[in-house]
Amino acid sequence: MRTVEVCVSPDLIPCYKLEGKIVVVIDILRATSCMVTGLGEGLAGIIPVEKVEECQKLKDQGYIAAAERDGKKVEGFDIGNSPFSYQDAALKGKWVAVTTTNGTRALIHSCHAKEILVGAFLNRAALVKYLLSKEEDIVLVCAGWKGQLNVEDTLYAGAIIESLEGKVKHSNDSALIALHLYEKAKGDMLGFLGNSSHLQRLKNLGIEEDIKYCLKEDLYDVVPQFIDGKLLPVLLTVEK
Amino acid sequence: MRTVEVCVSPDLIPCYKLEGKIVVVIDILRATSCMVTGLGEGLAGIIPVEKVEECQKLKDQGYIAAAERDGKKVEGFDIGNSPFSYQDAALKGKWVAVTTTNGTRALIHSCHAKEILVGAFLNRAALVKYLLSKEEDIVLVCAGWKGQLNVEDTLYAGAIIESLEGKVKHSNDSALIALHLYEKAKGDMLGFLGNSSHLQRLKNLGIEEDIKYCLKEDLYDVVPQFIDGKLLPVLLTVEK
Repeated sequence: MRTVEVCVSPDLIPCYKLEGKIVVVIDILRATSCMVTGLGEGLAGIIPVEKVEECQKLKDQGYIAAAERDGKKVEGFDIGNSPFSYQDAALKGKWVAVTTTNGTRALIHSCHAKEILVGAFLNRAALVKYLLSKEEDIVLVCAGWKGQLNVEDTLYAGAIIESLEGKVKHSNDSALIALHLYEKAKGDMLGFLGNSSHLQRLKNLGIEEDIKYCLKEDLYDVVPQFIDGKLLPVLLTVEK
Repeated sequence: MRTVEVCVSPDLIPCYKLEGKIVVVIDILRATSCMVTGLGEGLAGIIPVEKVEECQKLKDQGYIAAAERDGKKVEGFDIGNSPFSYQDAALKGKWVAVTTTNGTRALIHSCHAKEILVGAFLNRAALVKYLLSKEEDIVLVCAGWKGQLNVEDTLYAGAIIESLEGKVKHSNDSALIALHLYEKAKGDMLGFLGNSSHLQRLKNLGIEEDIKYCLKEDLYDVVPQFIDGKLLPVLLTVEK
């Protein structure tokens, strides 16, 4: 049977064999939720870069540019890391350059995988449908927070493992932990997340509405795919 | 209030500030369970080293030497990584040099901490008593398996956090995850562990008795302390 593993931090990617596998990068609050929203709303594509300076260079070349550090928009950039800012009709058909604290790092460090996708609650069903249409083993890479685990990314990994059960076998202890955590939390995710340090950090930034939005399921039927340094939309039809 | 954090893998130690804090190193199956047993049974001390070659050098100098790799005893050494081999009366008052796959690595990489201790279910109450007698913040460092998380070390971290509740506040998401996992598992730890990949690996080595032993609580009132490259016993009186 195909296998699914969980990698709880980008800093642990070197402990995994990614070659020949599909990687799903997860940064629920808020990078991958923004990416799904943006591509779901009709962006042509997203260019994720690791450093603010690289993002500035692309801005200078005429790209719309989004930069976030420590949960806050970096001064001088067009947009920060709120998914609502990606629902602007003026962005349709445009390219956006993005750098975030954790999410873009996880994408770029997953480069040895055969295929790299982006997951969020907002595209959970579409992602699962896409994964089940493939045959490769899967590694769910959580972006975490500055190398440490966070609850929301681990929960989402557990949600995907639950959706794949019976068809894809979870094969490392991180996957088992993620699944147990999700089973415990799924009845009241916002309440469960209330105690997490990352959520406290984000609440202090006054973005409760962003958080509620990022926990919504299946608003978009898009699966962002990372190819040659760019995120492009794969559109699916998902029955709901 | 004092804080307790969890670090789920030695590879993530660089993401933590250990200076001025107490680190507890956890490698339930089986390195730290062996250390607690050995010092509880009257060893004079243990010298943990990272590489098999260093362990061989100490053996050549006349130390009793224990070396384990991938769960198995390395050929030519006196003992492997079974806690029962540390219950030999002939070892009383002796020094043992030890190298293991994950546990010794976690100890050595925690060197920036103010104080480094060793925890196992076998000395849970003694460790908690000792921690509560101190004032520093605490980081529980799980040895994991080759950089990845494992269930049993994460569970033990959760058990310690539960024991400290009300007096020491858990302060990162890994700690919250560990606590949730322990709450879910504590009624039947062996059954819960049954699905973990690490346990499957160890069962294949025919060491079920070792595993059952390592989940027993409070057989020893000793807290191993890592000072200048050596593990020495701190003896406590614990009411049961």
